[in-house]
Amino acid sequence: MMKLKAYEELNPPNVLLLGGGPSNIDPRVMAVLSSPIVGHLDPYFLEIMDDTIELLRYTFKTNNNITLPISGTGSAGMQTAISNIVEGGDEVVVLVNGYFGERIKDMVYRCGGKPIVIAADWGKTIKKEAFEEVLENSNAQVVALVHTETSTGVLQPLRDIVRIAHLHDSLLIVDAVTSLGGCELDVDALGIDVCFSASQKCLSCPPGLAPITVSERAMAKIRNRKTKVQSWYFDLSLIEEYWVNRNRVYHHTAPISLIYAIRESLRFLYGEGLEKRWLTHKRNSLALIRGVEALGLKMNAEEGYRAPSINAISIPDEINDENIRKSLRENFNISISAGLGVLKGKIWRVGLMGVNSSERNVLLFLEAFERVLNKEGYPSKPNQGVSAAMDVFKSF
Amino acid sequence: MMKLKAYEELNPPNVLLLGGGPSNIDPRVMAVLSSPIVGHLDPYFLEIMDDTIELLRYTFKTNNNITLPISGTGSAGMQTAISNIVEGGDEVVVLVNGYFGERIKDMVYRCGGKPIVIAADWGKTIKKEAFEEVLENSNAQVVALVHTETSTGVLQPLRDIVRIAHLHDSLLIVDAVTSLGGCELDVDALGIDVCFSASQKCLSCPPGLAPITVSERAMAKIRNRKTKVQSWYFDLSLIEEYWVNRNRVYHHTAPISLIYAIRESLRFLYGEGLEKRWLTHKRNSLALIRGVEALGLKMNAEEGYRAPSINAISIPDEINDENIRKSLRENFNISISAGLGVLKGKIWRVGLMGVNSSERNVLLFLEAFERVLNKEGYPSKPNQGVSAAMDVFKSF
Repeated sequence: MMKLKAYEELNPPNVLLLGGGPSNIDPRVMAVLSSPIVGHLDPYFLEIMDDTIELLRYTFKTNNNITLPISGTGSAGMQTAISNIVEGGDEVVVLVNGYFGERIKDMVYRCGGKPIVIAADWGKTIKKEAFEEVLENSNAQVVALVHTETSTGVLQPLRDIVRIAHLHDSLLIVDAVTSLGGCELDVDALGIDVCFSASQKCLSCPPGLAPITVSERAMAKIRNRKTKVQSWYFDLSLIEEYWVNRNRVYHHTAPISLIYAIRESLRFLYGEGLEKRWLTHKRNSLALIRGVEALGLKMNAEEGYRAPSINAISIPDEINDENIRKSLRENFNISISAGLGVLKGKIWRVGLMGVNSSERNVLLFLEAFERVLNKEGYPSKPNQGVSAAMDVFKSF
Repeated sequence: MMKLKAYEELNPPNVLLLGGGPSNIDPRVMAVLSSPIVGHLDPYFLEIMDDTIELLRYTFKTNNNITLPISGTGSAGMQTAISNIVEGGDEVVVLVNGYFGERIKDMVYRCGGKPIVIAADWGKTIKKEAFEEVLENSNAQVVALVHTETSTGVLQPLRDIVRIAHLHDSLLIVDAVTSLGGCELDVDALGIDVCFSASQKCLSCPPGLAPITVSERAMAKIRNRKTKVQSWYFDLSLIEEYWVNRNRVYHHTAPISLIYAIRESLRFLYGEGLEKRWLTHKRNSLALIRGVEALGLKMNAEEGYRAPSINAISIPDEINDENIRKSLRENFNISISAGLGVLKGKIWRVGLMGVNSSERNVLLFLEAFERVLNKEGYPSKPNQGVSAAMDVFKSF
């Protein structure tokens, strides 16, 4: 029955993960992964949960009571948001300008909702005028969109969208998977109702947790549902009883080691300051972009709408997508991501997330990128990418 | 807005986790948690996924193609099983003799199914005659039950149940959360259709993964669903595309570090031999039971129906439940679990799971247990528990 073989010792390559995520784990976070675990209702763990909640509130910039990590990966955060908010028959306006917007639409549909899609090309933002018109002509009480589209590198401006959604008395769900901790995001000031993220992007933790925050207004919709949330595992009213309420009713066994990790990551983020982290991501992204442009290449997203955590570079017609990625991985141990969906073969995605967003990594990437491009016959003067990046660093 | 405080370094107590789970992590598994992560589609990780699948097939004793770890805790395994198999209107016979049977019932109901409950007292097994009668008088094509009820210490015999279910052309879903790797379980020989477990029990990994295996017969029901699985995150047809099929279509970012951990745990289990592990669990459980009985206490489950991984001890009337658990934790750094639901205050639950199922832990527990019982006024001759356990060890 079984393939009889000697399974080898684990020996993963030490790759610099500059793709769409996961990002490399902060070494200080790595250290706590091997701390002894305690029970999921142990008094010590309850304190760790409290710290995690407070630190997540700081990172989301919110006072929301329901602010906690869901025990699953980033898509589990999306699933939790949609499964709890959407009931059969609900119209939901979904902004789709990339792969993850499509995923939201699929989830809405599966939950019995009626997705009303406002689409834009993959690489463009959704304009407020289009949004306003659709919202006015629908009965939608829920709007869902992606803040930082990992598939396109686009940063969707939120201010007008939230304002218009609230004018129409709609709840706003925001996918901040590739934003949280790396891109400017103020949940309470903007008035976002549900916001979720992931541990393995700008928080430099292992994948496996999806931080989420839910406003009282959104919780009111959840508490007034006509039907129970179909997913017992993602039912926020049950999760609240375990994570937030003082009686701590057992729901499921939290992934203790991963909670240790995210608390440690957030503890360092808090010590350093959230706004400083945002600035670091912005500065390093800009340096990378100027470097790429100095090499004669173009970005996929328009200036002013580029996510500082994920940089999408348009692939010149004459260059082979896969050869460049392979060469970066084989010669420099650097991993970047291919395009997804309609952008497959059209863009490379270079992530600068969390601890990976560093001057060092920008310079290393540009140096390596120039060399592999040259090897593929793309002309460039040596060092021009790095020089352009250095100018940005000096000016900040 | 924020509570300004200095968050302390993580410093969890090193507790011996002899409760209902999580169990302590195998130190060899702990070591790989801090290995560098790679991308979820990296060629190295795809090999690790393949190894994990093969090793899980070995551990479940199955050839099922769909055998993989779900990216969530044990209850996510249950959710995946129920969400995929049950469609609106389906009658589902649920065997309920403890807390986790109740949970299955709730999940069936939420998925639009009609649970038909066969109940037994918490501590008793479900008899085949009762099962046969209910199944004959229903249109149920699905049966769900718990193999090892963590809440009662009962091991439900499976052979007759599976036989009868198949005679009635019903699919059988088995919760093996506290069985896999510790209790005799042969998925293919028995003919179980869907079986799920958890990483943090007899596999001595951190919580966060739910191994699951699904027969072709069960997959046929899933593939012929009239409606899509409501949960995108737990949709086995999508997960299959990422985990099992050779094209490896991106679904979600697997929790890389936890997959490293479960592969390492399974690698050692495979090297040592599954049947040897079963015997170890049986022997240590029996020694613990004889020791407890020598102290004059009784087990909650009947002889012959006791789970070797979780030992439920009835609390004598004159003894205070909480004092004993507190005293074990404070004086011996040992954590055991309280009863759940109707058994709260009535039983203690002592887990001997995975690496924690050892002669050393049996002796340590009995020694400590005798002392804390004595302190609470319960009479016993010194060393009688340990002596009885030693007799078992010698006889095996």
